[in-house]
Amino acid sequence: MTQLDDLKTLLGQVSDLSAAASLMSWDQETYMPPEAARVRSLQMATLAGLSHETFTNERTGQLLDAAERNTLSDTDAAIVRVARRDYTKATKLPTSFVEELTRAQNEAHHAWIEARKTDSFNTFAPYLERMFDLARRQADLVGFDAHPYDALIDDYEPGARAEHIRSVFADLRDRTLPLLRRITAAGDATDYGVLSRPFPAEAQRNIALRLAEEAFGLKPAFSRLDVSAHPFQTNFSRSDLRITTRFDETYFPTSLYGVWHETGHAMYERGVGERWERTPVSRGASLGVHESQSRMFENLLGRSRAFWQRYFPTLQAIAPDVAAGVDAEALYRAVNRVQPSLIRVEADEVTYNFHIMLRFELELALLEGTLKVADLPEAWNAKMGEYLGITPPNDADGVLQDVHWSAGLIGYFPTYTLGNLLSVQLLNTARQDAQIAAGVDRAEYGPLLAWLAEHVHQYGRSLTPSELTVRATGRELQADDYVAYLHAKYEDIYGLKPE
Amino acid sequence: MTQLDDLKTLLGQVSDLSAAASLMSWDQETYMPPEAARVRSLQMATLAGLSHETFTNERTGQLLDAAERNTLSDTDAAIVRVARRDYTKATKLPTSFVEELTRAQNEAHHAWIEARKTDSFNTFAPYLERMFDLARRQADLVGFDAHPYDALIDDYEPGARAEHIRSVFADLRDRTLPLLRRITAAGDATDYGVLSRPFPAEAQRNIALRLAEEAFGLKPAFSRLDVSAHPFQTNFSRSDLRITTRFDETYFPTSLYGVWHETGHAMYERGVGERWERTPVSRGASLGVHESQSRMFENLLGRSRAFWQRYFPTLQAIAPDVAAGVDAEALYRAVNRVQPSLIRVEADEVTYNFHIMLRFELELALLEGTLKVADLPEAWNAKMGEYLGITPPNDADGVLQDVHWSAGLIGYFPTYTLGNLLSVQLLNTARQDAQIAAGVDRAEYGPLLAWLAEHVHQYGRSLTPSELTVRATGRELQADDYVAYLHAKYEDIYGLKPE
Repeated sequence: MTQLDDLKTLLGQVSDLSAAASLMSWDQETYMPPEAARVRSLQMATLAGLSHETFTNERTGQLLDAAERNTLSDTDAAIVRVARRDYTKATKLPTSFVEELTRAQNEAHHAWIEARKTDSFNTFAPYLERMFDLARRQADLVGFDAHPYDALIDDYEPGARAEHIRSVFADLRDRTLPLLRRITAAGDATDYGVLSRPFPAEAQRNIALRLAEEAFGLKPAFSRLDVSAHPFQTNFSRSDLRITTRFDETYFPTSLYGVWHETGHAMYERGVGERWERTPVSRGASLGVHESQSRMFENLLGRSRAFWQRYFPTLQAIAPDVAAGVDAEALYRAVNRVQPSLIRVEADEVTYNFHIMLRFELELALLEGTLKVADLPEAWNAKMGEYLGITPPNDADGVLQDVHWSAGLIGYFPTYTLGNLLSVQLLNTARQDAQIAAGVDRAEYGPLLAWLAEHVHQYGRSLTPSELTVRATGRELQADDYVAYLHAKYEDIYGLKPE
Repeated sequence: MTQLDDLKTLLGQVSDLSAAASLMSWDQETYMPPEAARVRSLQMATLAGLSHETFTNERTGQLLDAAERNTLSDTDAAIVRVARRDYTKATKLPTSFVEELTRAQNEAHHAWIEARKTDSFNTFAPYLERMFDLARRQADLVGFDAHPYDALIDDYEPGARAEHIRSVFADLRDRTLPLLRRITAAGDATDYGVLSRPFPAEAQRNIALRLAEEAFGLKPAFSRLDVSAHPFQTNFSRSDLRITTRFDETYFPTSLYGVWHETGHAMYERGVGERWERTPVSRGASLGVHESQSRMFENLLGRSRAFWQRYFPTLQAIAPDVAAGVDAEALYRAVNRVQPSLIRVEADEVTYNFHIMLRFELELALLEGTLKVADLPEAWNAKMGEYLGITPPNDADGVLQDVHWSAGLIGYFPTYTLGNLLSVQLLNTARQDAQIAAGVDRAEYGPLLAWLAEHVHQYGRSLTPSELTVRATGRELQADDYVAYLHAKYEDIYGLKPE
C-alpha cells in the first residue's frame, strides 16, 4: 500500500461514515418510529464525531503532505486538492468552537420553533444575536480577504465573494423590478381553479414519478421516492438516490414540482463521475450549482409550454377529472402565476429572487453591524414593502419564516438565486446546439441531459462553481440570461409589450 | 471524566456504529434501490471494520483493567463483565484469521447459492469442507474444555455445552418420535382449505399488526413492519424495533405467524432494561432465549385454541371471505397441522425439532471428523428417513436448503430447539401465577408479558442463558415441559389416547 492508497482508504472511511449518517437522517425523516428520536440523535452525533475525528486527524495532514510531494494523475490530483481544501478549513475551527456552535445552533433552533409558534421575535432575538456573533468569530477563524461574509458563504458556494454577488443581485433587481410592476399592474383573468381540483396522492405519485423517469431520466433501479414533512434529496452513492415529497390532495403542484425539483438534485448526483466514488469530490460542486439543476428541471423545463404540450395527455390518462375541460395551454398558464406573496418557498419565478435579495442584504447588514437584531423585523417589513409591495401581518410569516438563521446557515440564502441565474445561463449555452434546442422545444430532454452530464455533473467538486461556470458557458455568472428569460416568458404570458 | 466514563463512551460508540450498520442492513433488505448494492457492501464493511477496530483496540483492554480494579454498581459491573467477555473473545482471533474467514464465508455463500440453484452438492462440497476446517481452527484459537463445538456455539448461546445439548436432544427425540408416529398413523380429515383462501396483502397486514399490538403489545410508536424477501427482526434501540414479513395472498399463515414470531423477538428487545442503553448488555441473552420469545408468541399463544376463540371475530371483521363458513375451532385445527415435510422453515411444532436434531448431529460428526463432507448428503437423507420417514428428492431441498453453513454459522441450529424447549418451560413457570394462567386461557396476555419483562427481558445479556433459565424457572433447561406440551396439545387435536 502506498501512502496515496492509505489516504484513499481513509477518505473512503470518512465517506462511508457520512453515508451512514445520511441514511440515519433520511430514515429519521421518513420511516423512524417517533419514540426512537432520542437515541437516534446520540447515534448521529457519534457518527458525525467519528467522521470529523477521522478526517481532521494529524495523519490525514501527513498523508496529504506526502501525496502533494508526488506526481499524480488528474483524478488523484483533484481528490488531493479537494481533500486539502476541506482539511485546511476543518482544522481551522478548534473543537471547542465547533462544540459551542453546535450547542448554540441547537438552542437557537428550539428557540426559533417556539418563537415562530407564538409569533414572538423578541424571544428569538438573543439567540439570533448569538448566531451572528458566532458567525463573525467563525469568519475570523477561517480568515478572509475582502469581507467576513466570504468566509461563511464559502461553506456553501466555494470561492464565492459578497462583492460579486452584491453587484449581480443589484443588476438583477434593477432589471426585474420594473417587470414585476408591469405584471402586477396588468391584471390577471386566468382561472387557477384547476390547481385545486381533488387529486389523490397515489395518482400524484404516479404522474410525478412517471415524468421524472420519462422526461428527466430518474430510474427506480438507482432511486426512490418517499414521503416526509419537508421535501429533500439525499444520497448514499450515485446509485442510491433518495428524494422525498409531500402530497396535498387539493393542490397538486406541491408534489409534482417538488418531485421534479428534487429529481434535478438527484440527477446531478447521479452524473458525478464514478472515478470520484467514496472521495470528497463525489458531490455536486456547490449549493448554487445544485440549485441550477433542480430549478432547471422544475421551472425552465417543467413549467415550460413545451412540457405540458407533450405531457398533458399523460395527465389526462392518470387524472382525467383534473384535466377535464382544460388544455395544455391552460395548465401552462396556471402553473406560471406571478403574485407577490409573503412566503419564499411558495414564490414564483419572478418574485422568488426578491425574497433572496432581501435576506442577503439583511445578512450583510447584520454581519457588518450596520443593522441591529432588534431592528430586524422592521427592516424586513420595509424591504418586503419596497420589493413586493406587501407588509407581513406578523413576524411568523415574516422574518421568522425560515429555519436557516436559527440553524447557523448564514451565507446560504444567495445560493438559491445563484442557482436560478446559472440555470438559464447553462440552458442557453446548451441550446446553442441545434439538436438540444430542438429537443427542449419538444420536451425531449435526452440531448440536454447528456450535455449537463458532460459539462456539469461529471466534475463533482473537482471544479469550483466559478471554474465550472466559465468552462461550461464561457462566462462568469451574470444576470443577463435570467433577466431575458423572465422578460420573454412573462411578457408573453401576461400580454405585455416587449420592452 | 473517570476511566469508567471513558469506557462507557467507547462502548457507546461501538454500539452506535453497530446500530448504523444494522440500519444499512435493514435498508438493504427493504428499501434500497437494486443498483446500490455494490457500494453499500463497501460501506457496511467500513462500519464493521471501524466497530471491530474501536472495540478490540488496546485502549479498551486498559479501560476494562481499570474498571475491574474499582468497586462498581451492579449495573456497571454487568456492563464491564459482558464487555470483558466480548473483548477476550474478539481479541483471541487474529485479524488475519477474521479476514480469511470473511473471505471464505463470502465465497462459500456464493458457491451455495449456485449449488442450490443447480442442485449440485459436489460444487459446494470443497467450500463446505473449508468452512468446517476454519470452524475447527476457530475453536482451537478460542479454546474449549470438553468439545470444540462448545467454542462455536458460545457465539450464539453463551456457556452452552455440546454434551448437555446432546443429552437433552436425545431425551426429546426418544419421547416425541413415538408421538409423531402415532399422529401420522392416525389419519387426518381436517379441511385445510381455509388457509389458502384469497387474502389481500393489505388485509393480512392489518390483522397481523392489529393483533401484534392488541395481543402482544407491539406499538407503532416504537416499531414498524416492512416487507422483505426473508423475514427478520432488527433494532437500533429499544424504541426503534423493525420487523419484516412477506405476504402470500393465497397462504396467509406465512405473514400472520411470521409477524407474531418477529414480534416475540421485538418485544424481547423492547423489554431490555433502559439502563443498558448503548452498551453491549443491551440485547437479548442469546439466540435460544430470543427464540423462546418468538416461538412463544407464534406457537404457544398464537396457535392456541384460546387465541382464535378470542380473535376469530377480528378475522371475520377484517377478512369476512376468509372466515366464511368456518369457526374458531376449525381455524385452530387448520393452523396446527402435523405433517413431516422436507423443509425446516415450514415445519410444524412436532416435526420441527427433528430437522434441528438432524443438523446438530451432522454438525458434530463433521466437526469431529467421523463424517466426511462427501458423505453428507447420504447421511442427511438417511436421517430424514429415520426421523420423518421421507427421502429428499434432491439435495436442493435436502442438505442444501439452509444458508447457515455457507455463512459459517456452525453451532447455530440447536438454538432453535433450545428456544422451543425454553418457551414452554417459561410459560409453565409463569402459569403458576393464577392470574397469568387465567389470562393466557382467555388470550389476555398482559400479565404474562409483565412476567416475561420482569423475569426474562429486562436482564439483556447481563445473565447467561443458563443463569436466566435457572433464575426464571428454578431449573436448568430440559425437555420435560415441551414433551408434555406436545402430548397434551396433539393428542387432543388428533384424538389420540393419552399415553
